[in-house]
Amino acid sequence: MSTTTQQSLGQALRRRIDNKTKPLGALGQLEEIALRIGLLQGTTHPVVNRPHIVVFAGDHGVAATGLVNPYPQAVTAQMVLNFIREGAAINVFCRQNGLSLTVVDAGVNYDFTADQVGDRLVSKKVAFGTHNYLQRAAMSPSQALQAMDAGREVVTGLAAQGCNSIGFGEMGIGNTSSAALIMSFVMGIPVADCVGRGTGVNDEQLKQKQATLEQVYRLHRPAITSGPDTSTILQCVGGFEIAMLTGAYLEAAEQKMIILVDGFISTAALLLARLSNPAILDNCIFSHCSGENGHTKMLEWLGARPLLNLGMRLGEGTGAALAFPFVRAAVSFLEEMASFESAGVSKSDEA
Amino acid sequence: MSTTTQQSLGQALRRRIDNKTKPLGALGQLEEIALRIGLLQGTTHPVVNRPHIVVFAGDHGVAATGLVNPYPQAVTAQMVLNFIREGAAINVFCRQNGLSLTVVDAGVNYDFTADQVGDRLVSKKVAFGTHNYLQRAAMSPSQALQAMDAGREVVTGLAAQGCNSIGFGEMGIGNTSSAALIMSFVMGIPVADCVGRGTGVNDEQLKQKQATLEQVYRLHRPAITSGPDTSTILQCVGGFEIAMLTGAYLEAAEQKMIILVDGFISTAALLLARLSNPAILDNCIFSHCSGENGHTKMLEWLGARPLLNLGMRLGEGTGAALAFPFVRAAVSFLEEMASFESAGVSKSDEA
Repeated sequence: MSTTTQQSLGQALRRRIDNKTKPLGALGQLEEIALRIGLLQGTTHPVVNRPHIVVFAGDHGVAATGLVNPYPQAVTAQMVLNFIREGAAINVFCRQNGLSLTVVDAGVNYDFTADQVGDRLVSKKVAFGTHNYLQRAAMSPSQALQAMDAGREVVTGLAAQGCNSIGFGEMGIGNTSSAALIMSFVMGIPVADCVGRGTGVNDEQLKQKQATLEQVYRLHRPAITSGPDTSTILQCVGGFEIAMLTGAYLEAAEQKMIILVDGFISTAALLLARLSNPAILDNCIFSHCSGENGHTKMLEWLGARPLLNLGMRLGEGTGAALAFPFVRAAVSFLEEMASFESAGVSKSDEA
Repeated sequence: MSTTTQQSLGQALRRRIDNKTKPLGALGQLEEIALRIGLLQGTTHPVVNRPHIVVFAGDHGVAATGLVNPYPQAVTAQMVLNFIREGAAINVFCRQNGLSLTVVDAGVNYDFTADQVGDRLVSKKVAFGTHNYLQRAAMSPSQALQAMDAGREVVTGLAAQGCNSIGFGEMGIGNTSSAALIMSFVMGIPVADCVGRGTGVNDEQLKQKQATLEQVYRLHRPAITSGPDTSTILQCVGGFEIAMLTGAYLEAAEQKMIILVDGFISTAALLLARLSNPAILDNCIFSHCSGENGHTKMLEWLGARPLLNLGMRLGEGTGAALAFPFVRAAVSFLEEMASFESAGVSKSDEA
């Protein structure tokens, strides 16, 4: 759409919003969301169709060392089975808010059987977990590419079914470490400023996590000399679920989808997607500010204003799922509220 | 319930929350809400039944002067008709979030006909608007009592139908002024610190609103010499919708309901209810921080941590309606999520 057309659409949307029976601006951020979704969809009557959450799961070689994570690596596979059996937080919140859920095996270190998962797990497994990035690159260039492509494929499939609103989540023991390293490389700030407690390390474990990640940073820094780039960072310190998230974001933007961004790890993947497509932020609604240290800094750096700040730090796409009703509310007030004229309500300047 | 029983119930709830398949505390404020609702209902299996929004509407004598409000007084009645015809923001958000809506005429300056409202407006009209408190008390002692009783009756009726979760809203041109005066008297701070733009006065109008309310404050201050008390403040500077809200809060607390507190005016009414029953805060979940100046101060004074901060300032109970999904989410995760044991997920200390 041309800039002029976008401008006149923006004005038409603003008029429509301002004519609803409420004081000017009284719906706050919901009004901004309605405006942005209208611009994204190129219409004054935007819609939310078949909203979806996709959770990518993958294992991290470093988790086997126990240096960065209080939970054993096996929990990634156990939680995937929990998703499949509808017992996790993301299942509860998707059910409650009328969202479909797709779970993707991006690279879990476990061989799921048909008995366990039937057709309810989408297998895009690149490998049984990444390499330990304390010793070498987490994945090969072709694995990074394969994972990003797989993420794109999942989104393409949902778009073909009519889905135009999507939130992404992740599961992977050790992946706050990967996210902290990505944050450090992309934002160009010390890794110590990016490390947090993840699923709940204590003070001593936090020191150890920090020291470990500084070591990883020093090992891989030379490979990223020519400035941060998506593929190189993924190869060095990524996870398969994070690489798929990155590809999924890029495809969702190309499909003009509304993207709900979840917490720390999901936002780290968005940092990588944004390196390839800076305009992707036009599609993004930031669902919440996670309790994980570093997320606030990421959001500020992106100029993002999250909808919620409930001290949550669970991942799985739970923040995105809980924020979805606000996307619906923005679209609904625009479509369903009466205007001053239709309701016969006086405006302030008719006093 | 005895203190010991409450303590052991609290421990049982905490255990139940901590055994869900998520890191300790990872659901942030949702965990606190689940705990509080469990304690309120006296069970480890709390439920949300027939959730309801009640909107009280009333007119203010001062509004006829045009000194404090950019919208004409007639808008109160026009908006009530908009509620009845399902065209307002609160209708949209109640529909979306599965909430029933009751609209109450507390004292609107308009004679609604059966043709217009059928049986969809609950009439508890005390009078056709309050007196102008620039000249005299807004209402008589018996009117304040009548209005509070009417608010209680509405809640008693809903409780009898099985409703255990309720949010209150209001509509009344000029009622941010009444709320600012209540705030000033209850919190003992200058009225200038309590006045805001309401539905959108400009800089000049704001100065005039402030000067007007300071005059009102000086006129009624002598009547409140012996310290703030609910009934006297309502008589001097209240509105019928605010008095009904006050009674409704008190009844909802006695019925052990979950109360969702909306914005500036609703919180002002809660300040009055709390004078009569300080324990009422145990029932209250603060839905959002309004964009209206003064609401942040009220919330801080109450030690309240609102769920949302979306820059909304519409009233009508819209903040409460939008926050309801979080009450549902708190109860749902507690009831529906698998435990570590049931899902076969390892805990961090089993690493």
